[in-house]
Amino acid sequence: MKLKTLSIAMMTLAVPSLAAADELLQMQKDPNNWVMPAGNYNNQRYSELTQINKDNVKDLNMAWSFSTGVLRGHEGNSLVIGDTMYVHTPFPNIVYALDLNSDGAIKWKYEPKQNYDETVPVMCCDTVNRGLSYADGKIFLNQADTTLVALNAEDGKVVWSDKRDDAKRGATSTGAAFVFKDKVLVGISGGEFGVRGYVQAYDLDGNVKYKAYSTGPDDEMLVDPNKTTSMLKPVGKDSSLKTWQGDQWKIGGGTTWGWYSYDPDLNMFYYGSGNPSTWNPVQRPGDNKWSMSLWGRDLDTGMAKWVYQMTPHDEWDYDGINEVVLADQKVKGKMHKTAVHFDRNGFGYTMDRVTGELLVAEKYDPAVNWSNGVNLKTGLHDRVAKYSTARNGEDVNTSGVCPAALGSKDEQPSAYSPRTGLFYVPTNHVCMDYEPFEVEYVAGQPYVGATLSMYPAPGGTHLGNFIAWDAREGKIVWSNPERFSVWSGALATASDVVFYGTLEGYLKAVDAQTGRELWRFKTPSGVIGNVNTYKHDGKQYISVLSGVGGWAGIGMAIPSLENETDGLGAVGAYKSLSSWTNLGGVLSVFSL
Amino acid sequence: MKLKTLSIAMMTLAVPSLAAADELLQMQKDPNNWVMPAGNYNNQRYSELTQINKDNVKDLNMAWSFSTGVLRGHEGNSLVIGDTMYVHTPFPNIVYALDLNSDGAIKWKYEPKQNYDETVPVMCCDTVNRGLSYADGKIFLNQADTTLVALNAEDGKVVWSDKRDDAKRGATSTGAAFVFKDKVLVGISGGEFGVRGYVQAYDLDGNVKYKAYSTGPDDEMLVDPNKTTSMLKPVGKDSSLKTWQGDQWKIGGGTTWGWYSYDPDLNMFYYGSGNPSTWNPVQRPGDNKWSMSLWGRDLDTGMAKWVYQMTPHDEWDYDGINEVVLADQKVKGKMHKTAVHFDRNGFGYTMDRVTGELLVAEKYDPAVNWSNGVNLKTGLHDRVAKYSTARNGEDVNTSGVCPAALGSKDEQPSAYSPRTGLFYVPTNHVCMDYEPFEVEYVAGQPYVGATLSMYPAPGGTHLGNFIAWDAREGKIVWSNPERFSVWSGALATASDVVFYGTLEGYLKAVDAQTGRELWRFKTPSGVIGNVNTYKHDGKQYISVLSGVGGWAGIGMAIPSLENETDGLGAVGAYKSLSSWTNLGGVLSVFSL
Ligand SMILES: O=C(O)c1cc(C(=O)O)c2c(n1)C(=O)C(=O)c1cc(C(=O)O)[nH]c1-2
Ligand SMILES: O=C(O)c1cc(C(=O)O)c2c(n1)C(=O)C(=O)c1cc(C(=O)O)[nH]c1-2
Repeated sequence: MKLKTLSIAMMTLAVPSLAAADELLQMQKDPNNWVMPAGNYNNQRYSELTQINKDNVKDLNMAWSFSTGVLRGHEGNSLVIGDTMYVHTPFPNIVYALDLNSDGAIKWKYEPKQNYDETVPVMCCDTVNRGLSYADGKIFLNQADTTLVALNAEDGKVVWSDKRDDAKRGATSTGAAFVFKDKVLVGISGGEFGVRGYVQAYDLDGNVKYKAYSTGPDDEMLVDPNKTTSMLKPVGKDSSLKTWQGDQWKIGGGTTWGWYSYDPDLNMFYYGSGNPSTWNPVQRPGDNKWSMSLWGRDLDTGMAKWVYQMTPHDEWDYDGINEVVLADQKVKGKMHKTAVHFDRNGFGYTMDRVTGELLVAEKYDPAVNWSNGVNLKTGLHDRVAKYSTARNGEDVNTSGVCPAALGSKDEQPSAYSPRTGLFYVPTNHVCMDYEPFEVEYVAGQPYVGATLSMYPAPGGTHLGNFIAWDAREGKIVWSNPERFSVWSGALATASDVVFYGTLEGYLKAVDAQTGRELWRFKTPSGVIGNVNTYKHDGKQYISVLSGVGGWAGIGMAIPSLENETDGLGAVGAYKSLSSWTNLGGVLSVFSL
Repeated sequence: MKLKTLSIAMMTLAVPSLAAADELLQMQKDPNNWVMPAGNYNNQRYSELTQINKDNVKDLNMAWSFSTGVLRGHEGNSLVIGDTMYVHTPFPNIVYALDLNSDGAIKWKYEPKQNYDETVPVMCCDTVNRGLSYADGKIFLNQADTTLVALNAEDGKVVWSDKRDDAKRGATSTGAAFVFKDKVLVGISGGEFGVRGYVQAYDLDGNVKYKAYSTGPDDEMLVDPNKTTSMLKPVGKDSSLKTWQGDQWKIGGGTTWGWYSYDPDLNMFYYGSGNPSTWNPVQRPGDNKWSMSLWGRDLDTGMAKWVYQMTPHDEWDYDGINEVVLADQKVKGKMHKTAVHFDRNGFGYTMDRVTGELLVAEKYDPAVNWSNGVNLKTGLHDRVAKYSTARNGEDVNTSGVCPAALGSKDEQPSAYSPRTGLFYVPTNHVCMDYEPFEVEYVAGQPYVGATLSMYPAPGGTHLGNFIAWDAREGKIVWSNPERFSVWSGALATASDVVFYGTLEGYLKAVDAQTGRELWRFKTPSGVIGNVNTYKHDGKQYISVLSGVGGWAGIGMAIPSLENETDGLGAVGAYKSLSSWTNLGGVLSVFSL
């Protein structure tokens, strides 16, 4: 399972694995660095840096820029460690180490050899990759072809690599690898190809430690029927198996391609699972557990402590993979270690991350109409019958469902400021028509079974909002309409400035308290990357990848998609994007 | 020959052709605009704008940027007319009209359909295109497949188009179309495929007015044996034919892909012709006239007034196509209407552009060693025998020739400031080994017949210089060494600031008097585009295309070229470029 190319020379360079855990915990506290995808274990995308503030952010200028040489969608963000910045690209998944002492001159470049014809055609939503992780002198890259590779951070040489799955059956990777303490965690994509989701853990030397599926027998899910809870109660035996008809769970999705977080005190990690396969609900009666669920697992063993299914028996492709942000908040008078999650289904969930107790669940876009709300006792939705694509049945077009399949929010990660106590959430404001049809499973072939159109939510023409959310109350504090969905990850800083990018290509800075726009800059291409910040030589920098694409930009990424329903319905909704921007991956770095 | 798609509606929009001539003459005087490739008829790339000056240029910042969505080399520059900027790309030769009132939002986009497999493989030196021209409400694009197309400047619709040649025999286009008064002039590429060079003139409605070859019978060259002069004497009958063996002139090159200039008072236009084919001199005894020559022609009739061959019987691929800059200068005590030309062969020529008299010819890089100098009476070189690849013969490697085949300067255009009286010249500082071999002509196949390696000139490791040149004396005034060849076109402004880009991706501003660097900025990719400037809403902007490629960057543009001698020898010399930058076309716009 493991290809060891670790030379003696590299071993002497490498810090012993045991020290690495502490190393990351320390490193993320240094705001000069940005050492992991979200900047910190708790997924807050919050920086203590304050050199750039509300008064001077208007003077922000581009300091330098770097073309990645790759077109199509650029998600994720760079890492910054000392004098080096690490930048990744979508397929072919190049990694660059850039010299911050020399305007980003290239220290080394790693370009994997991957099979294009096998891999790219089975990537559902563009050839994106969500970035790199670091630990123990190594840069971890989760390649599209499901190879996890550890590169020597000094010279880019392969230290070890493991190809864990097979694109021929539709399994690919877009999510970052996440390093928590002494483990590297990777998920899998392929919910549109019937891939059964799982998370796999390695140690830092490339040995597989465990694998935990989202569906199937208890032992394969690392679920203890008596100890693993859902809504505070043990899940019981076969909690997944009995919610599926026959063997459907084997091709039942629940993939795991989102942003993971970690609480070092609880030694638990958190992530969500995606849609059940197929998108045609008629073909898979039952709750389809544990697709569409949030998971809290023990890092050492992988055992699930709790799980919560947000959308049982999904009828709209509301994948549950969006990030889980960890913050300590007072909810209904009581302090909780909370986990906050903005689900594709349009609800913002606040949970107790120790117990999995559901504390708050409210709509974070008023347009959401498929559910009247969540019962906090049962965790279940009060569904609106007319928007039930299962009830309306196959070959019936259910129209006007809000949100659309790409949710009130998709993978674009939110930020949290412990100073304001608010979450800053890039959102979609899109509705859809959804027509399920019968589809046969063929390994490696699309297993979607639904035709979609998407369009702006009623009463407006804009496709997105950037909002501030109070997760204690479940309330929108302010909301800035945006022409297109905000498909970029947000950044909050200790000077109460919040940054995000737009699909037209603007990088924007807004006031964390009021949402007032303080600054904007037109980067070369639409932004679906995540904003981050670092300090070098005493100067604070803001950095972001532009390069339009992703699901929203799929019509640009694949120009041959021309019908409104192409790209699983995204082509029509985002058609006018081509009047604003073009493909092209460029890292832009800003400073005062 | 002409595809008319001119609708009634468009005709009412279009300004009558007669008025167009005056229109351009006026428009180029307005420094807010940039209405033709070089900004003005005389190819000076000089702007009267002074808002950005020596003191404040250090505060220049990027205002906005625009990814073109195309990788590979981006030569040329944008046009600016009023509120609209027109940007072109390399193959597939997209044209964008950008709204300057809205950070470059796309007004319209034109993307021609061209046959990739027929065209791209026969482009010798990357898929570059050198830009657009404007007249009469139309934007003129000279496509790679040799189609000249006129687009309605308002909406990008095709007004007329004409495909004048055939890529199947190796004929392509990279040069801009040039509009002078009431004519559109286009040249041809393909000297590496035995294409016989010519310039073709259209009126603004797409009717072919004349075609003038570089080689062959007098009437096909539009040469009058009695009236056309060279070195002040009539060229006489069959001036070309008698310098070739047999029919070799038919496949003898002399292509015409450079920057043209025009003197409205003399009604003459100027340009150069390229290398004789093949690169193996042994196969084509004789002077090979009029390859490697400067031409002064009457615009109305195309008739040659004078012609001068800089490198008779070329042995090194010193194409004569580099720009001809028109300036009025006092040389040896007497005012002349001069034409100044920095030839690939390493000599800076100052000529009287009325008569074709040779006034000055001096080395503009001291490394030049193949010639000891030019006899101003005969116009001939004092050649150094040991660097003669013809004398050394086939299958002999002649080493240490300076300059290399890409010359002391290639297509990268210089700028001239009438204020300082100096020329600002982006140069190469590269030498070569050159081994000719016998090659058979097959239509559409490379007809090169030489193997090359290139490397820095002796005594240094740098591959370029940016110099200031006094063309009255033939002297370098100052010279800034650059790590790589300077493959970007220069801009001079009335505030005595000179701009140029570098292959690493820097845009630089230097003091016109001293060469002192005043400012630099790292753009996303290596710069082989030309810097220009315009004013919009009272603000001066500097704009430049980055996007590494061209001959120097061919190893980046085509990563499969891996041998040092690949890319006609450029791959080896510029190998380290990949440590500095990546492909990617981005327009960057700067202001104070
Ligand atoms: O079910 C899956 O395995 C899967 C994978 C991915 C992916 O890997 O990018 C996306 C989705 N689903 C998906 O539903 C979705 O909305 C989506 C958006 C994007 C994106 O990067 O813009 N990827 C994906
Ligand atoms: O002989 C020809 O027809 C021809 C064409 C071209 C071209 O069209 O780009 C170049 C050359 N030659 C050439 O010799 C050369 O050095 C060159 C450099 C470049 C460039 O764009 O970087 N093109 C060309």
